[in-house]
Amino acid sequence: MADPPTGRADVSQLFQLLRDGRPRTRAELSKSTGLARSTVTGRVDELLRLGLITPVGEAASTGGRPPSQFALNPGAKVVIAADLGASHATVALADLTGELLAEHAEPLPIDLGPEPVLTWVVDGARALLERTGRSERDVAAIGIGLPGPVEHSTGQPVNPPIMPGWDRFDVPGWMREHLDVPVLVDNDVNISALGERAFAWPGTEHFMFVKVATGIGAGIISDGLLQRGAQGTAGDIGHVRAARDVDVPCRCGNHGCLEALAAGPAIARTLAAQGLDARTGSDVVELVKRGELAAIQAVRQAGRDIGEVLTTAVSLINPSVIAIGGSMARVSEHLIAGVREIVYTRSSPLATEHLAIVQSAAGRSAAVRGAAILAVEHALSPEGLAHAFAPR
Amino acid sequence: MADPPTGRADVSQLFQLLRDGRPRTRAELSKSTGLARSTVTGRVDELLRLGLITPVGEAASTGGRPPSQFALNPGAKVVIAADLGASHATVALADLTGELLAEHAEPLPIDLGPEPVLTWVVDGARALLERTGRSERDVAAIGIGLPGPVEHSTGQPVNPPIMPGWDRFDVPGWMREHLDVPVLVDNDVNISALGERAFAWPGTEHFMFVKVATGIGAGIISDGLLQRGAQGTAGDIGHVRAARDVDVPCRCGNHGCLEALAAGPAIARTLAAQGLDARTGSDVVELVKRGELAAIQAVRQAGRDIGEVLTTAVSLINPSVIAIGGSMARVSEHLIAGVREIVYTRSSPLATEHLAIVQSAAGRSAAVRGAAILAVEHALSPEGLAHAFAPR
Repeated sequence: MADPPTGRADVSQLFQLLRDGRPRTRAELSKSTGLARSTVTGRVDELLRLGLITPVGEAASTGGRPPSQFALNPGAKVVIAADLGASHATVALADLTGELLAEHAEPLPIDLGPEPVLTWVVDGARALLERTGRSERDVAAIGIGLPGPVEHSTGQPVNPPIMPGWDRFDVPGWMREHLDVPVLVDNDVNISALGERAFAWPGTEHFMFVKVATGIGAGIISDGLLQRGAQGTAGDIGHVRAARDVDVPCRCGNHGCLEALAAGPAIARTLAAQGLDARTGSDVVELVKRGELAAIQAVRQAGRDIGEVLTTAVSLINPSVIAIGGSMARVSEHLIAGVREIVYTRSSPLATEHLAIVQSAAGRSAAVRGAAILAVEHALSPEGLAHAFAPR
Repeated sequence: MADPPTGRADVSQLFQLLRDGRPRTRAELSKSTGLARSTVTGRVDELLRLGLITPVGEAASTGGRPPSQFALNPGAKVVIAADLGASHATVALADLTGELLAEHAEPLPIDLGPEPVLTWVVDGARALLERTGRSERDVAAIGIGLPGPVEHSTGQPVNPPIMPGWDRFDVPGWMREHLDVPVLVDNDVNISALGERAFAWPGTEHFMFVKVATGIGAGIISDGLLQRGAQGTAGDIGHVRAARDVDVPCRCGNHGCLEALAAGPAIARTLAAQGLDARTGSDVVELVKRGELAAIQAVRQAGRDIGEVLTTAVSLINPSVIAIGGSMARVSEHLIAGVREIVYTRSSPLATEHLAIVQSAAGRSAAVRGAAILAVEHALSPEGLAHAFAPR
């Protein structure tokens, strides 16, 4: 007779179907997977025992006892999500749909270095677990966003310009000494793309998130997948040469980069040259809020400069939505108006026919939402499942 | 007792493992899939009976009779591949690894319209089948490349500028009246990316193919997947505004597009203005071959103009290889020298550290090779498998 099947592949196959949240009967599961009814029954029992799925409602009866339906149990586990910005940090707990359950944010300079900042994350996560009555055993994975380039495969920052002490620091290794679950690390703009899409544009397969703040960067989702590129630098548009030939030096060592022309500090410099009191992006935000015409015009011009680069992005990537976030976009519609002006003028009709260019709806929470999704995606994958739900 | 499993999912699961060509034993297949040994034995027999896999060599014995190994049988079926250019067409047969078995090419203007051109493909394919001793029943799928935008999901050209009569023509529907197998259609630059990568850069996950001929376009592969974008226009870089602010009108209706500045006819125009006898890209090629300095300089400048746009592509997509093909790149290294000059000067060190910018190695055959891969990928997918190997 046959060796008994190991069953792991079957369980994972069933669970991958059920994780979309749509309830299904045993008969539907058998049909979708091609597994025998008896096998499905055994695997469903196993997933119920683990608490990973839960019986839901009742399916339409086909006569006799109505068959039970099952779906993902979003509260079976939690994930920890952290968004670590240049000067501000957020830590949150989320359920297995990525929904935020609790969060805590405070000013925290990233240049304190990795150990103090990550200790803050561990302490904050433990406090949130306690507040929500969950234990460390309930944590399936941790997602972390950092304000610089990250090698996603190792979770290590690589030459991050504003993060002294973080270069090649083993973030997952350090974290796992304190919380022994898988740790996923990515840069904040990439995870903002994940978070913004889940929050405002679920199901959009070709999506781009552009952050305009102290720097400028983009996160790209194509065919539903976050694009990182060969070295993880995909979306790094801050150092593309701007179309306007202005010979401004950039902190990267080159001249005329988009960031040196259109990010917050660059707009402030333009305004200071006109005699206005502006040194930082926050000063620009204040001037725009006060209705200062020169500031509004400078922000709109920054939008046009960004639009020139996004026109090329539209031709290359053909997204259906570009969401623009970051402090410079949040303050008003002027930046986005400048972007739209150029992109809709310069791009091919086919590429812009169904293109929406919009303000970020998730706002400041885009990154921490994305960190949660990064963790959930891993925890619920066949690979992550083996770890997350093994008895500890 | 249990209902019998339908088995289709199991068969497909086994075959997806075996299609990489690496031989595996039944024990290895059981371990990789989690299926019972008895199930694997049954499924292997089924795949052997269909001729889809074949026994290969002998695995290292662990004592007793050496276990047999199995792998994809590349000759089990064939695919038809067609590359239809503006004025030239190629039709070929390929095996299930995408290797070309036979091909036929001749001048054929695409503006004859769809029926005459596709009739040529059908007749040519039948002649190749006869020449190689295969029957129409052996054909698993057809891949076709067209010189214009194609909606990949329907296989229909959409507003193709140089293809009168082809707009929204149902290419797969027409073909299936003559050869009833799945028909995959894409634009020639996208399939050239597939073909060039398979020919010269197998395993490269982040790859870009740029064609510079009468027009300019790019095919992008990210994470190993061809990128088409929301409307199928991804890679359409010909109408990005060039960095050099030259106000040339473009056939698209805009001004200053890359194509209007750096494609073959544009270079010819530049040379004609200098008093040289050049009207087409072919004239430019002739002048470069003759060592005409002005022509060499103009081609190099075109390379720089293309390089400006590719710099943005490198920042956005972060490929590890950019292969440049098309008649303007094939003639000499001058175009690529211009591209390299700009991209390596303007891009971030991290993005270019491991970036190769090279001439196409597959040359004219890149597109027809890609058409074969398009067809093979579909035929061997779980979805395609059901059709391709159903008894007819």
